[in-house]
Amino acid sequence: MRAPEELLDEARAGSRAALARLLTYVEGGGEALRATAALAYRSPAPYVVGVTGPPGAGKSTLTDQYIAATLADRPEDEGRLGVLCVDPTSPFTGGAILGDRIRMQAHATDERVFIRSMATRGHLGGLSLAVPDAVRVLGATGSRRVLVETVGVGQMEVEIASAADTTVVVTNPGWGDAMQANKAGLLEVADVFVINKADRAGVRETRRDLEQMLDLGGARDWRPPIVETVATSAQGIAELGEALEAHRAHLGDVGLAARRRANARTQLEAVVAAALRERVAARTAGEALEAAVELILEGRADPYGAAETLLSSP
Amino acid sequence: MRAPEELLDEARAGSRAALARLLTYVEGGGEALRATAALAYRSPAPYVVGVTGPPGAGKSTLTDQYIAATLADRPEDEGRLGVLCVDPTSPFTGGAILGDRIRMQAHATDERVFIRSMATRGHLGGLSLAVPDAVRVLGATGSRRVLVETVGVGQMEVEIASAADTTVVVTNPGWGDAMQANKAGLLEVADVFVINKADRAGVRETRRDLEQMLDLGGARDWRPPIVETVATSAQGIAELGEALEAHRAHLGDVGLAARRRANARTQLEAVVAAALRERVAARTAGEALEAAVELILEGRADPYGAAETLLSSP
Repeated sequence: MRAPEELLDEARAGSRAALARLLTYVEGGGEALRATAALAYRSPAPYVVGVTGPPGAGKSTLTDQYIAATLADRPEDEGRLGVLCVDPTSPFTGGAILGDRIRMQAHATDERVFIRSMATRGHLGGLSLAVPDAVRVLGATGSRRVLVETVGVGQMEVEIASAADTTVVVTNPGWGDAMQANKAGLLEVADVFVINKADRAGVRETRRDLEQMLDLGGARDWRPPIVETVATSAQGIAELGEALEAHRAHLGDVGLAARRRANARTQLEAVVAAALRERVAARTAGEALEAAVELILEGRADPYGAAETLLSSP
Repeated sequence: MRAPEELLDEARAGSRAALARLLTYVEGGGEALRATAALAYRSPAPYVVGVTGPPGAGKSTLTDQYIAATLADRPEDEGRLGVLCVDPTSPFTGGAILGDRIRMQAHATDERVFIRSMATRGHLGGLSLAVPDAVRVLGATGSRRVLVETVGVGQMEVEIASAADTTVVVTNPGWGDAMQANKAGLLEVADVFVINKADRAGVRETRRDLEQMLDLGGARDWRPPIVETVATSAQGIAELGEALEAHRAHLGDVGLAARRRANARTQLEAVVAAALRERVAARTAGEALEAAVELILEGRADPYGAAETLLSSP
């Protein structure tokens, strides 16, 4: 294993191979992750935009167009744009790389962008813990903004949103019922709504459904704007960019700090829980447990004493 | 708090008040439980018969009749009969005490029986951990046999069965559909089936449903007998007693030891998990967590280092 310190220096000097290796450390978990995290979290966090939505909503194409638009008018000092593609339904993300991701590879050789499809290999908390770590590695190596594209499945969208500063939820025309079913989840995570494939029938109804959902969701200090896009022909991408900037401006320094504090708390609780799950698994596996069971059966220990011994042994 | 050692001596000498106090220690959790468990688990475990079934099946009346029958022909050296009544749906068990339990109180002054309605007060693992502890306290103070009557709700029946040597599942005529829905759970826990209220219509169909369920459940070395009872008039109680003895004889010393080993393992794993949950809660509550979050936000710690610090602090 090459030392994360060296890799971090090389990545900061521009080595994409070194950066890729650091992200592999993050995915792999264990000591390499810990050593990498210990360095990465020293640098300021990048601004994180989460893009989530069900499979087939057009998230990759939208992300692709957003990358192109961002690079087109990017000031020199904005640093690199980091992009993490997360598909929890595809354990190896091979499908995604070979399919939709092909288009993004057009930017893959552009020095101003770094794109990575993330997989969980050994990270103790799975993708929901690996993603914020990867975000910090990107931040520590020159990305001032990171885009996290996630397939919204089950709790995943909520978990990823808790690592984002601004979250975009991508829908399609005709999704009224599907959105209704997941209303609480959508209201919880969305800062911006996108109706992608807006050249299809049903846009007006979907917008009405979203507006209604927001009306019923109660008063909040930010009402998520609804942006219509046709990602395949880059329509609405500029408006999406404006909506993102508007939300960032709305947050301001105080709002951003509050959100990051809440996110850090959620993440730390998840890490503590994961570390404890790891310990239980280690302590209740194999010979140590069987020996403790034997002591209980022989009347030489009670379960509480035995549990203490299992938990406090080195 | 009076020392559990003293109370145990007094309870062994016949003090029901001392025994009641020890059981209150068990329910309350914490140091008093631990000190009590450390003593109780030194004595051999009593033989535990679990009686479970949905509310209204007639479990209390059945238990009542079984107590009466057991006391009627009880040899002197059989020790006391312990009875634990557990209703996880009633947090204070007040309803049960005032209602069905009234009849059992006929035996309450009989020296040969000790009846207790259990409630969870502070026990870290709830009733499913408190019951096996209470069983051992009864065992350590003169009960050679303990009856545990539980309302079968959710996972409770499975959890209580994992503390029993023989488990009786009580059904009623006409319950084919309800049993079908819970087939896997019933097959997992039942050593003896009772069709109580067998003077009502539908006994034959219920027996057929049970037989069919057992046929489909695959080959096991013990096929649970099906006993018909009318608990209100003591019909079938003798047959129930015979079925219980038959299962005990079937287990034999080797089978009983194997079951108790499995039960002890399940219990120890649950205690370890509960102790860890307690630790997470303590570690991620209040100032320590907020201080760690602050360090992360300031770039002076990463979540893994912070979690380690939280978990290893005394």
